[in-house]
Amino acid sequence: MQQSLRLAELIQERIDDFLDAQTKSLEPLGPDATDMLNSARAFLRGGKRFRAQAVALGFMAAKPLDFDLPLSNDAGRVIAAASALEMFHAAALIHDDVIDRAATRRNQPAAHAAFALLHRERGWRHSATHFGVSSAILLGDLLQTWADMLLQEAVNYSPPALGRRARAHFDRMRTEVALGQYLDVVEEQLPQFAATSEQLDRASRVLLYKSAKYSVEEPLLIGAALAGASAELERVLSGYGVPVGVAFQLRDDLMGVFGDSQITGKPAGDDLREGKRTVLVTLARDELSGSIRNIFDEIFGAAELSAEQLLMLQRTIADTSARSQVEAMIQKNVALAVKFARNPEVAAAAVEPLIALAEKMAHRSF
Amino acid sequence: MQQSLRLAELIQERIDDFLDAQTKSLEPLGPDATDMLNSARAFLRGGKRFRAQAVALGFMAAKPLDFDLPLSNDAGRVIAAASALEMFHAAALIHDDVIDRAATRRNQPAAHAAFALLHRERGWRHSATHFGVSSAILLGDLLQTWADMLLQEAVNYSPPALGRRARAHFDRMRTEVALGQYLDVVEEQLPQFAATSEQLDRASRVLLYKSAKYSVEEPLLIGAALAGASAELERVLSGYGVPVGVAFQLRDDLMGVFGDSQITGKPAGDDLREGKRTVLVTLARDELSGSIRNIFDEIFGAAELSAEQLLMLQRTIADTSARSQVEAMIQKNVALAVKFARNPEVAAAAVEPLIALAEKMAHRSF
Repeated sequence: MQQSLRLAELIQERIDDFLDAQTKSLEPLGPDATDMLNSARAFLRGGKRFRAQAVALGFMAAKPLDFDLPLSNDAGRVIAAASALEMFHAAALIHDDVIDRAATRRNQPAAHAAFALLHRERGWRHSATHFGVSSAILLGDLLQTWADMLLQEAVNYSPPALGRRARAHFDRMRTEVALGQYLDVVEEQLPQFAATSEQLDRASRVLLYKSAKYSVEEPLLIGAALAGASAELERVLSGYGVPVGVAFQLRDDLMGVFGDSQITGKPAGDDLREGKRTVLVTLARDELSGSIRNIFDEIFGAAELSAEQLLMLQRTIADTSARSQVEAMIQKNVALAVKFARNPEVAAAAVEPLIALAEKMAHRSF
Repeated sequence: MQQSLRLAELIQERIDDFLDAQTKSLEPLGPDATDMLNSARAFLRGGKRFRAQAVALGFMAAKPLDFDLPLSNDAGRVIAAASALEMFHAAALIHDDVIDRAATRRNQPAAHAAFALLHRERGWRHSATHFGVSSAILLGDLLQTWADMLLQEAVNYSPPALGRRARAHFDRMRTEVALGQYLDVVEEQLPQFAATSEQLDRASRVLLYKSAKYSVEEPLLIGAALAGASAELERVLSGYGVPVGVAFQLRDDLMGVFGDSQITGKPAGDDLREGKRTVLVTLARDELSGSIRNIFDEIFGAAELSAEQLLMLQRTIADTSARSQVEAMIQKNVALAVKFARNPEVAAAAVEPLIALAEKMAHRSF
């Protein structure tokens, strides 16, 4: 995918330029502020940038797009909006890692952990941990504002009606992901599994709002809006985007139980340690006999799991049909997405890249 | 101030309408999301709404404004922008209370404390405190997005150049306040007072970015931008707004040491418990003899202060000239602001209300 690499490069450039401009205009705030700006910079390197690809593909589904030099106004708008989504995603991850008390992100210290480290290195007083949390909250807030500024740049160079439509999707996305994350947090607090069908409903709702719509559908719709997509094309792109997002998250659920930390950048079995009642786990638990289920429930989501207990949970889940059920769901969702990608509303140039994106997201192979 | 009461009412209406619309459109997220929406609603009642007044006065400095029914387009834009600032401020306070570990806000439980209470009432598992923090982070994120949506409403109904200018001020404000808060947090981590002049510089920088510009100057400029103010009028309004904001924060510093919890909604002596090296405290410490200063340093900002130690610190500060110095600084800043309010660039109708706002903010008498 030459185009996706080129896009990733252009986005990194746009983000770096933005950070340079902010660093310059924020000089009067003095040297302490520089630590914050450096953290922002570190956190905005790399990542998979597939939300950015979704923005570009959403645009291409409605209107031709290339990134040849000199960049067209359309390319500039897409790059600004895609950079906005990557900036917003960084903000969301920074807050998410505080919420999940996750120590690492992309095989590096999470933002709060990096700030805590800074605190210790400098021999500051009070709690390094709380300083890390406080700083990460503020860094996330800062990046949310900056994401908005980048999106506004795309809006400013768009015809007003198109800009407003893109912003409406962006606002909806931000609202839903905050609430989706809250639903996820609440889920972890509940003392017990609900009955299987209710638990599946709950897990599906978290998956839809926290991940599927946020990671795929809304980025596509933002890109499509910038290109002036019809309401009908927006419906087709939702039809494609939601199942791709669902497949993406179901794959994440599989990896959260069975690994692979190389791909996720997180330790294997994390979902088990956190007691996440995912679709996978709920389906597996449904097949357990009463006594085994009681043992499973006791261990699942305990504060500290031993390596043995972790392995036991993994094996218990592996012995059920849940894994193959989830694989089948992923395939079904990809097939559905492919069907929508081939809808005549979608511009021919976007069809194969959309299908390729669906496959890559469903297998996390990027 | 009939007009300010009327404005506060209109803003509450606008915010309530906004929340009603969100509640309706978020129904598919189910009942758990309702807790979050209810918290948002509770947190958006009341408050002093002086940022909203600043938006209106900034507008009036450039262009006549009334809130007679039916509301004019200008009034609608001002109300939307003012509601945006109040929404953003709620978000900032919610995150700030997590950072400061403040249990109360406006004599009610802080958002994180209210969520922790909900957790306990429902008998949920895991840490109620951490659930409170997580939920408050997400609620603050949500309200930041919603603030932005309200601001965008003002922008959408404005001539494009004016809307862009208002948004530029809004973006600058949000960026600076996040970094200003970070500087404040860092300040608390430093093991010792710096030399007096450097410490005063540091305290002044925090005061300027975390409070003065954020609370007064930028809201004024947002209102002025919506009215199409000239660059010259914007400079005059900055000349007015910064000293009013400084006076406001210096008064807050006095209250943070000596009370009054009736006005602040926070316990008296909070700044001493938190070890805040404000301008007031720095000036007081500068007058202490070596041995008293050593005792002062030892007690100031200790993790747990006894009532006796608190009283001792208050008395020590009261015995210096710092209190009267800070009172004199407040008066000087108000006088400077009044001079700018009377600048011929400012429309006649705005002059007396601006002077009244300066006085009220300097004495926190609203």
